[in-house]
Amino acid sequence: MSPAVREGGRLVVVGGDAAGMSAASRARRLRPDIEIIVLERGRDVSYSACSTPYYIAGLIGDRNALIAHDAAFFRAERRIDVRLGADAIAADPKRRTVTYRTDASETPQSVGFDALVIATGASPVRLPIPGSELPGIFVLRTLAHADAIRDFLKNEPVANAAVLGAGYVGLEMVEALHSRGIAVTVLEALPHVLPSHDADMSELVEQELLAKGVIVSKATKVEGFESGADGRRIGYVLAGGRRLPTDMVVMAVGVRPETALASSAGIELGRTGAIKVDGRQATSETSVLAAGDCSEATHIVTARPTWIPLGTTANKQGRVAGENAVGGNARFAGVAGTNVTKVFDLEVAQTGLSSEGARKEGLDPDSVRITDLSRSRAYPGALPITVKLIFERGGGRVLGAQIIGKEGAAKRIDTVAAALAGRMTVADLEGIDMSYAPPFSPVWDPLLIAAQQAAKKLRRPGASS
Amino acid sequence: MSPAVREGGRLVVVGGDAAGMSAASRARRLRPDIEIIVLERGRDVSYSACSTPYYIAGLIGDRNALIAHDAAFFRAERRIDVRLGADAIAADPKRRTVTYRTDASETPQSVGFDALVIATGASPVRLPIPGSELPGIFVLRTLAHADAIRDFLKNEPVANAAVLGAGYVGLEMVEALHSRGIAVTVLEALPHVLPSHDADMSELVEQELLAKGVIVSKATKVEGFESGADGRRIGYVLAGGRRLPTDMVVMAVGVRPETALASSAGIELGRTGAIKVDGRQATSETSVLAAGDCSEATHIVTARPTWIPLGTTANKQGRVAGENAVGGNARFAGVAGTNVTKVFDLEVAQTGLSSEGARKEGLDPDSVRITDLSRSRAYPGALPITVKLIFERGGGRVLGAQIIGKEGAAKRIDTVAAALAGRMTVADLEGIDMSYAPPFSPVWDPLLIAAQQAAKKLRRPGASS
Repeated sequence: MSPAVREGGRLVVVGGDAAGMSAASRARRLRPDIEIIVLERGRDVSYSACSTPYYIAGLIGDRNALIAHDAAFFRAERRIDVRLGADAIAADPKRRTVTYRTDASETPQSVGFDALVIATGASPVRLPIPGSELPGIFVLRTLAHADAIRDFLKNEPVANAAVLGAGYVGLEMVEALHSRGIAVTVLEALPHVLPSHDADMSELVEQELLAKGVIVSKATKVEGFESGADGRRIGYVLAGGRRLPTDMVVMAVGVRPETALASSAGIELGRTGAIKVDGRQATSETSVLAAGDCSEATHIVTARPTWIPLGTTANKQGRVAGENAVGGNARFAGVAGTNVTKVFDLEVAQTGLSSEGARKEGLDPDSVRITDLSRSRAYPGALPITVKLIFERGGGRVLGAQIIGKEGAAKRIDTVAAALAGRMTVADLEGIDMSYAPPFSPVWDPLLIAAQQAAKKLRRPGASS
Repeated sequence: MSPAVREGGRLVVVGGDAAGMSAASRARRLRPDIEIIVLERGRDVSYSACSTPYYIAGLIGDRNALIAHDAAFFRAERRIDVRLGADAIAADPKRRTVTYRTDASETPQSVGFDALVIATGASPVRLPIPGSELPGIFVLRTLAHADAIRDFLKNEPVANAAVLGAGYVGLEMVEALHSRGIAVTVLEALPHVLPSHDADMSELVEQELLAKGVIVSKATKVEGFESGADGRRIGYVLAGGRRLPTDMVVMAVGVRPETALASSAGIELGRTGAIKVDGRQATSETSVLAAGDCSEATHIVTARPTWIPLGTTANKQGRVAGENAVGGNARFAGVAGTNVTKVFDLEVAQTGLSSEGARKEGLDPDSVRITDLSRSRAYPGALPITVKLIFERGGGRVLGAQIIGKEGAAKRIDTVAAALAGRMTVADLEGIDMSYAPPFSPVWDPLLIAAQQAAKKLRRPGASS
């Protein structure tokens, strides 16, 4: 049941980034009559968190370029009452009130609502190890975090840096710092970089890092930090006690969903630890919806709840939550975990499950991996592109893909995302009439080659994945 | 029923380009025991016809780079008896013989077969107007045609050229000649360039041509050619009798299926004029299959026979025909007419039906057209990309798309091709979890924006397409 906001009633949204502002904007478009309040803890709304590494790199010079619309715009153009520095500390779904604190006053304030959208996002993990709060140690999630890193780089002499964590954000920070002439060491606790990819694919990414002169240390745990006695700013301590000096540290070891407000309000969390929602973004409380990085989503491959915090999902879920909060009946189609990142000259793309991920879900995955070219062999500038296609051993349903190459990887992954949405088999994928012209692909697109190999493997089982 | 080649029997393939050599190679892989003969009228097999404009431009310098494998390779590595200069002039499906002529002998030769694959391709149209065979007037289809144009450009002073026809080949030739410093005029008989696209999209292509200094004349019929009296090589005569001089002419006014062999053998042609085949590439004669540009295919949107000659289709149909000729049971998935071409700095991509094409098929199409960016607005180098999405007014099934932009158009079309294969609606398309990172797309991919607009239009009908 939707918590339809009554005529002239009030929608409150907690969180003013992708999901929250999408929800507020969608609700306003559908309901000019209601009051809409957004409580945002920070100083910025509706900015591109995914762009912050490029802002730190200096590739995006203007901070304002990261902000789609500021609070003044939302107030003036969309009549959305955006309250900055407003930290929601409690919600009462039954009495339909939210309590929040502001810098301006000691006393918390309360506001009533007909419907509440929780879009509190996720927060970056700071490892619970000694010294992790020392100056010069940063996390990156918000624009404010990015500002802090930029200020530090501007004011301090940074010749080298250590990045903890070789996931997307970690590797984007590696590139950002490297592009500023800083010698970067990346330390990954797991046995391979980009842990969401299979090891055989992330190896290509590691090669690219090494080729650019990045020091890559896998299966490496940092056990603590200390102020440098030798005049260097920070020492990081490895297992066994070995100490290495560095000028700055970026901790990019993951995020966790911000669920404090929801769970203190008695709203059910899912098995992933994020807020449990249905396809309409409804929570266990009738008056409350949730969207974005704080909430779960249904994985379209497994049909199970999953938690994959991504900006695209936050925007889409926000729209759905905003529509349903005011009496609509929108549904979110679910996630495939499609993502792409640039690692120096590589486009690194993924959708669906990895081989490892599929096994963890109890599926029986097989896979093929092929390397072909981004253009026709004869056409100048053709570059290698590697496709790994993961499919069910029985029946051949496509489960996921990883594509890595210097060009043409990023948007090719969407064709597989479409195949996942259509629950296609490798034979179906092989049957897609893909485009061809010498400047853009070989006559057999690398995806078709992979699908063909997969179909062949299905016919002659035996070889292991 | 398949014409399974008996143990140690013989497969004959007529035509040694994409479809023919794919068929022969596939048959060889499945059946090491049989004899395989390919009769090729010309001097080359298995070359990239789609690359010839880039060879003429000089972008591909080495003629051999266009040839995937030569006849010697097929003979030695695949034991395929490729006979060059062998022009098949008759086939008898009942007696299972093919008759062909060679340069070496006056007397035609005959060869028997268990199964025959006809892969005779298509031939370029020479307009039946006065003077169309004059020297300096070329068509482009084969590598031999490309050689002739290259030789002419090498040996003759060509300052300006006229290209007749503004389809793919025409525009690729415009760019090739322009890149060699030649002033090019393109003359299109129909009211807009790229007639397979809708007029509102091909307008973007026309703008690009004009921006590069190409003279574009639409709705312009050439009525004849004459030797130039003024020392210029060729005069072309427009309707009304106006004459213009030019140094060379490329006639790119389309192709027609090469069906002489098939029809003289009593094999049924389809309503499109190409050879009628079923999903297994079987013709009306049990012993004969057909594949590639000489044959029809089922359109996956209309489920009707269509004739869209493209290299990708030829390769795929060839594989299917080769497999089935030796007793297999492969099926060709059908075509969506997906194509892409580079027109100077533009990627011009299309799949499925145009609005105009859909109406001709008796459908009731609606459409949206949006322009967004190829990358996140904040990320350097973001360029406009225009998406036109065509869908059924009732129900919203996706019928086709056209995408034009300076980057990111070519491979984005494949996501729509996948949606067509999955018979998705615009709502399904909107639900695809597409990739996002600032260097590769806005957070809402242009395709998602188009799908969203289409879904909105479906909910509020009225506006015309």
